Amino acid sequence: MSRLDSVIRRLKAQRSCLNFAAGELTGQQGAILELGLGNGRTYDHLGELFGRDAIYVFDRRVAAHPACIPDDQHLFLGDIHDTLPAAAERLGRSALLAHCDIGTGVEEENRKLAAYLAQALAPLLAPGGLLISDQPIALPDSEAVALPEGVPANRYFIRRVVS
Amino acid sequence: MSRLDSVIRRLKAQRSCLNFAAGELTGQQGAILELGLGNGRTYDHLGELFGRDAIYVFDRRVAAHPACIPDDQHLFLGDIHDTLPAAAERLGRSALLAHCDIGTGVEEENRKLAAYLAQALAPLLAPGGLLISDQPIALPDSEAVALPEGVPANRYFIRRVVS
Repeated sequence: MSRLDSVIRRLKAQRSCLNFAAGELTGQQGAILELGLGNGRTYDHLGELFGRDAIYVFDRRVAAHPACIPDDQHLFLGDIHDTLPAAAERLGRSALLAHCDIGTGVEEENRKLAAYLAQALAPLLAPGGLLISDQPIALPDSEAVALPEGVPANRYFIRRVVS
Repeated sequence: MSRLDSVIRRLKAQRSCLNFAAGELTGQQGAILELGLGNGRTYDHLGELFGRDAIYVFDRRVAAHPACIPDDQHLFLGDIHDTLPAAAERLGRSALLAHCDIGTGVEEENRKLAAYLAQALAPLLAPGGLLISDQPIALPDSEAVALPEGVPANRYFIRRVVS
């Protein structure tokens, strides 16, 4: 499989997971957390699924396409070690979905970040809320959700907050 | 259509065009020209289709994944206004395929570049050779080739050198 094949597979898997979450969460009101804005592609996709007003974005800096930049009210700029606790204070446990595409390519860093996210996202995700991530995250009081068809195992992970 | 949908569609269209070219050129020997290395994804894909030894890459600088960097013999580094004439001297009219993913987002620049490529690629592409590009390029003595199934019109362009 070439790197072109691989990126197509990854992006399609990502889209399948986001679309799956939108189906699961139909009719529910709550915040959507996008960790890592990057070039803004998944933010744009989440905007089509949930409306941009619901989405809060976390990143260290903005490097996205101009059409994919949230307004200041929906942007937590800085280190997530600071911004996630700040978001928990402001938003409370109101999030329906957190999407974390944050793999760094360095396994040790990924593990540390995943451990931090597990405890930092818990005060944000509402019961029934979903966590979609490219790394396994041991979210407390959550269960694994079967991946949508066509998403390769261990490429993405979906968990649902039980209580 | 979100920007995520759009990039998936673009990458799949690109892959379809490259795979189509490989089918058309089966069994023929010649050079493959990759204009713009970028992150090296399409170079990697072309390598699977044609073998890396056949591929010559043109770019201003190397910013690709370490696994996707050609050796010095297969890399023309610099401005294509210099490197394409140099390649024509070294390789002659031996290229089976040129792949140009070079759109800048600025229409006027794209037009200028396309006009240059039309005359700079002519001394490189062998009769029967294919040109795949994300911009229309008025290659002399060439005919339009129908796009493979699933590739949206005007997203890619394929031309075949007639004589």
